[in-house]
Amino acid sequence: MHNRKKKPVSDSRNEEILYGFNSVFEAVRAKRRKIFEVSVSKDKADEKFAQFISGLGLTGIRTTKISSDQMAFLTKSEMNQGIAARVSPYKSYEFEDLEGFKSGDKAPLYLILDSIEDPHNFGALCRTALAAGVDAVIVPKDRASGPTPTVSRVSAGALEHLRIVVVTNLVNAIKALKDSGVWVSGLDGSGDKTVFAADFRGPTGIVVGGEDSGLRDLVRKNCDFLVSIPQVGPVNSLNASVAGAIAVYEAVRQRLGA
Amino acid sequence: MHNRKKKPVSDSRNEEILYGFNSVFEAVRAKRRKIFEVSVSKDKADEKFAQFISGLGLTGIRTTKISSDQMAFLTKSEMNQGIAARVSPYKSYEFEDLEGFKSGDKAPLYLILDSIEDPHNFGALCRTALAAGVDAVIVPKDRASGPTPTVSRVSAGALEHLRIVVVTNLVNAIKALKDSGVWVSGLDGSGDKTVFAADFRGPTGIVVGGEDSGLRDLVRKNCDFLVSIPQVGPVNSLNASVAGAIAVYEAVRQRLGA
Repeated sequence: MHNRKKKPVSDSRNEEILYGFNSVFEAVRAKRRKIFEVSVSKDKADEKFAQFISGLGLTGIRTTKISSDQMAFLTKSEMNQGIAARVSPYKSYEFEDLEGFKSGDKAPLYLILDSIEDPHNFGALCRTALAAGVDAVIVPKDRASGPTPTVSRVSAGALEHLRIVVVTNLVNAIKALKDSGVWVSGLDGSGDKTVFAADFRGPTGIVVGGEDSGLRDLVRKNCDFLVSIPQVGPVNSLNASVAGAIAVYEAVRQRLGA
Repeated sequence: MHNRKKKPVSDSRNEEILYGFNSVFEAVRAKRRKIFEVSVSKDKADEKFAQFISGLGLTGIRTTKISSDQMAFLTKSEMNQGIAARVSPYKSYEFEDLEGFKSGDKAPLYLILDSIEDPHNFGALCRTALAAGVDAVIVPKDRASGPTPTVSRVSAGALEHLRIVVVTNLVNAIKALKDSGVWVSGLDGSGDKTVFAADFRGPTGIVVGGEDSGLRDLVRKNCDFLVSIPQVGPVNSLNASVAGAIAVYEAVRQRLGA
């Protein structure tokens, strides 16, 4: 009778629907989620898709063909590109896991997002963070975009490989980082030096503020430094994902010794 | 009877509908378009809007209140934020105008977009270009996003202040730039040096390739240099608008002497 208590292979609380080619492809490649099933639109006759689907056959992952209407219903998005995957939920990390991410003598580089609510900005920042070799992206649990399938799609699947650390209190996380020897710089127009004059070669956390209001007061107060991105012209403020990219790549530049 | 031949104040070929607060606001501020009328949704009760609309009264610009259904019909977009403006078409520049943009001894910095088709990437690049003080953005006439109202909205109105030069043949434009003493660097993963090892302090053109296929062959061949953005991690290639921002801001950094 214990069969009745056996967990189903998946249920709606225990699965997510990824969509878009890169998101599904990278989820399979990253091997961090269980892949229950990959579905492709019947009308999709693309060589890249065909190769991927035939490769999936070798891994034992179940594939199905569905109509494009069914695909739209399944993904609830027009951006599905005719492919979706039913997968286990995204596995985020906790603050305590950070210690274990360290590798050799390399100074860690963390991207800290304060109140980034737009999943497109979060996804864009994930894509940049992975390309730049950021060790972890630290985000607050509340009032911020989480690591959703939309974020995975916008990140071109980068989310599937990245370490996302979700914390309940971002200010406490920043304090704990500082206690562990990390220098935390907040991007802020009022910064007394520019990102280019900052030193990101040691253990570094870069904090990017929300789209409209920037860093929250308590976050700003707890940064070691406030650094700005020089801007001219009549329209103020770069997009949050662009500002974050410029700062993170300035750290990459400094670490290359260029 | 000559009244019958008189041009109307505006006609559909001679006007565009801008929408979104920043786009409309910056178009009014930039004074580069004729503003025929600004429309606001009746249900919009925002202080920023109210101040702007009362300011418009002083400038003699006609304002109307319309229903949100009428607003959706007028703008054909759900991203209108309850505000739209009927304006004269965007005024681009021609290649011959570049000479006149030079100011003092400052080495010009041009952003050249090869086949950027996504208006969101074009808009994001415009916003960055304006913030970075780029002298002009050079785009091909065909197979690329033009300076549309969507681009104005995505750029947070930056498009309204920026100089967009539209050319019929981008390769010829690159050749002419080189003849005039500009060093042209194309962003390309195969580049033999990184953007951080390049020298952008002299007269510089930075070419960003299309979202999927990068630089076209002939464009690539005609660049003085190919430069790459260092990337680690399993997912290749940054978003085009992020890659462009990193390169343009590397030029800003070098010119600041940081």
